Amino acid sequence: MVDQYEIVLKEYGRGFHLITNEVLSHLPTLPEKGIMQVFIKHTSAGITLNENADSTVRADFETVFNKLVPEIGVDYKHVDEGLDDMPAHIKASLIGSSITIPISNGRLNIGLWQGIYLGEFRNYGGRRRLVLTICY
Amino acid sequence: MVDQYEIVLKEYGRGFHLITNEVLSHLPTLPEKGIMQVFIKHTSAGITLNENADSTVRADFETVFNKLVPEIGVDYKHVDEGLDDMPAHIKASLIGSSITIPISNGRLNIGLWQGIYLGEFRNYGGRRRLVLTICY
Amino acid sequence: MVDQYEIVLKEYGRGFHLITNEVLSHLPTLPEKGIMQVFIKHTSAGITLNENADSTVRADFETVFNKLVPEIGVDYKHVDEGLDDMPAHIKASLIGSSITIPISNGRLNIGLWQGIYLGEFRNYGGRRRLVLTICY
Repeated sequence: MVDQYEIVLKEYGRGFHLITNEVLSHLPTLPEKGIMQVFIKHTSAGITLNENADSTVRADFETVFNKLVPEIGVDYKHVDEGLDDMPAHIKASLIGSSITIPISNGRLNIGLWQGIYLGEFRNYGGRRRLVLTICY
Repeated sequence: MVDQYEIVLKEYGRGFHLITNEVLSHLPTLPEKGIMQVFIKHTSAGITLNENADSTVRADFETVFNKLVPEIGVDYKHVDEGLDDMPAHIKASLIGSSITIPISNGRLNIGLWQGIYLGEFRNYGGRRRLVLTICY
Repeated sequence: MVDQYEIVLKEYGRGFHLITNEVLSHLPTLPEKGIMQVFIKHTSAGITLNENADSTVRADFETVFNKLVPEIGVDYKHVDEGLDDMPAHIKASLIGSSITIPISNGRLNIGLWQGIYLGEFRNYGGRRRLVLTICY
């Protein structure tokens, strides 16, 4: 069995954002057992799982990803959409465009400290569209 | 229900390549709703989703990944298979060995600008083998 | 159909470790065709697929990831849990918290050289908990 929901997130600024509750708010009761995929339909933002408690972790993610994939000092060819665009594409592939989470006993079976992150890599990315697919 | 296809890609040179159409050409009609996994059976090439329109994006991916994981200046121990080999393994794990894509209304439900990339990280990687698995 | 198993790995030190056999030892006979997800319930360790034969590959992974995400020289804000903690979070998102593997003919359909890696990014991470979910 497959259930699927296409949703549009609120608008977020550049950086890493905890969206677990926003994603869950779009879902009905989950099945007892299965998997849920969270997929983003964009190439300059990504989805990952990480620490859900301390907002400085998300701030440090932004610092490190900007260092890993700098806007200047690299000889980019794809520059027409702004300095933030090409690094955004690379960052999106580094964290990936989807995560898959096990569902057990009717709940997302993630660790106590795990939360769903949106990595918004554009300065002004606008509202991002996700597809949530549940297989059970 | 699960459908599965094992395919062998054309040979690609080192770099990032758009393979969406080649993958689709191996598939029959897709189910109405589900997920499709594209899995690569190799450790020195990877699969990711990214921008499908401008080939300079793929060229910039190659530039940045070579900078992130250089062939020289790192004290690699695994060097018997050539200077490009160990960096290829690392790059493969950075982008990952598979992607999973939602299927909606009988089509891959990817964004307008998303395409499937093969990251070929060896100088002469040969033809790469993929497993396509559709759950619905 | 979905089968699911929650397991606890042996304790591993910091670094990359081949856990294919340990994961398989927790599984009964696999279905003929499907997918298996290996999910880690932690934010400072990750799961990836890579070369299963030469242990120097895993040593080189550790070298390169420490270089990509250094413990010193970055202005981290999240420092209360030790110098290794914040880099561990970043590394976990770079390789990801799960892999999905196709199952064909009752076996994991991975390449000859592919094995499941635990990336243990903490100095003393303790025993790590995984969820194995099989859809078929």
